[in-house]
Amino acid sequence: MQHERIWTAALIVIGDEILSGRTQDKNVSQIALWLNVQGIRLAEVRVVPDMQDAIVEAVNALRARNDYLFTTGGIGPTHDDITVDAIAAALGVGVEHHPKAVAVLERYYATRGGATEARLRMARVPEGADLIENRMSGAPGIRIGNIFVMAGVPHITAGMLDALTGTLEGGRPVVSRTIGCWVAESEVADLLGAVEKAHAGVAIGSYPFFREGRTGANFVVRSPDAGLADACVAALTAALGDKGYQVVAEGI
Amino acid sequence: MQHERIWTAALIVIGDEILSGRTQDKNVSQIALWLNVQGIRLAEVRVVPDMQDAIVEAVNALRARNDYLFTTGGIGPTHDDITVDAIAAALGVGVEHHPKAVAVLERYYATRGGATEARLRMARVPEGADLIENRMSGAPGIRIGNIFVMAGVPHITAGMLDALTGTLEGGRPVVSRTIGCWVAESEVADLLGAVEKAHAGVAIGSYPFFREGRTGANFVVRSPDAGLADACVAALTAALGDKGYQVVAEGI
Repeated sequence: MQHERIWTAALIVIGDEILSGRTQDKNVSQIALWLNVQGIRLAEVRVVPDMQDAIVEAVNALRARNDYLFTTGGIGPTHDDITVDAIAAALGVGVEHHPKAVAVLERYYATRGGATEARLRMARVPEGADLIENRMSGAPGIRIGNIFVMAGVPHITAGMLDALTGTLEGGRPVVSRTIGCWVAESEVADLLGAVEKAHAGVAIGSYPFFREGRTGANFVVRSPDAGLADACVAALTAALGDKGYQVVAEGI
Repeated sequence: MQHERIWTAALIVIGDEILSGRTQDKNVSQIALWLNVQGIRLAEVRVVPDMQDAIVEAVNALRARNDYLFTTGGIGPTHDDITVDAIAAALGVGVEHHPKAVAVLERYYATRGGATEARLRMARVPEGADLIENRMSGAPGIRIGNIFVMAGVPHITAGMLDALTGTLEGGRPVVSRTIGCWVAESEVADLLGAVEKAHAGVAIGSYPFFREGRTGANFVVRSPDAGLADACVAALTAALGDKGYQVVAEGI
């Protein structure tokens, strides 16, 4: 287990609307779940404002220490959309209109009022970039090196993820098994720690809740090794049972 | 305007459950909205795993360059709750049981099975810390220097924010005005940029959507100066009207 290569990705969520609380982010969880299926672990996320310096700092910190870096937001046609320029600045390259993106936008806007200069801003990419297909709304995403630049609107992001599915090298997907118990997690804290310690390569998360007037907790067992995860769940279930707690398979 | 002091905060969301996609974070938006009322701007957010090195790095980067640093998550009784130890390590101080937190937990658990060693883990704080009251579930939050350590469960976080309301120095709250238009934002991109440029101290965000078969956008005008925000909204409304677009007050 410990010699298995872990592929990691980071995500930068770009947008004042997230930091102001106006908009509830949906992209962290959707990208995390998608990455997991690709066998890639989301290792860290940063949310930064629509400011070039902040984006540049985050891009350069995260692209260096992860296999992949994703960004969401800031690739529209308006003055607050500065992601492309910031990424080009981070990489020390210029910005150019990508001919295929221009063609896509001209076709998309042919029946929608024409490809104006503002709209063609969405064809601008850092020099040397490739495109990520966007079947939802014309303006493509961008791939340059290990950086994937995607839309902020979640259903458009989802379409771009679809276009990338199966194209990125990863390891084994992490499998996740959940069991639940009507118990205060503090009553079984030692037991959880001991079972985790006995299963190297497995992480157990404990997620308490209060529902129907009672205290409970779900325990999430995660590992790239499905057999190991199952063995850990079996051991945890047995240990909880020995203490007199009834375990609900699949969680509560 | 440009000489008005801006108070900033950063937030570190600590938890594998966010990075795995299992749990949808709610704390970024709730803390952002609460901070705004305190006259403090949420400047950056990082989501990090339950790993001490990752937490220490984020704590030391963010506490130095913001007035305040908030963390959520990892302060429960189980083995995966390492926030207190990580913050103590970041600050280079030890960890101690806070006598008042011990008393709170002993009282809380008196009728709930007793204050076991695992439960008293929740009374551990970095040396020299103060407590943040938690009326929801006993275990308090922690304040040390400019760092505020809070629960990850959103309704408990909310209670801790209540306890802090009005206690932090800030500036003027940013006011936010929204107007909407049934227009593709790309048709008015130049107009938006020009109106923003004409109103120093105001930021205009453009948020497109597709609804009822039509394309629209909301334009969010933000400034700590309410008069300036109103003037900008008036100018933007007039400029859109001149182009023949009907503006919906308060947004669509």
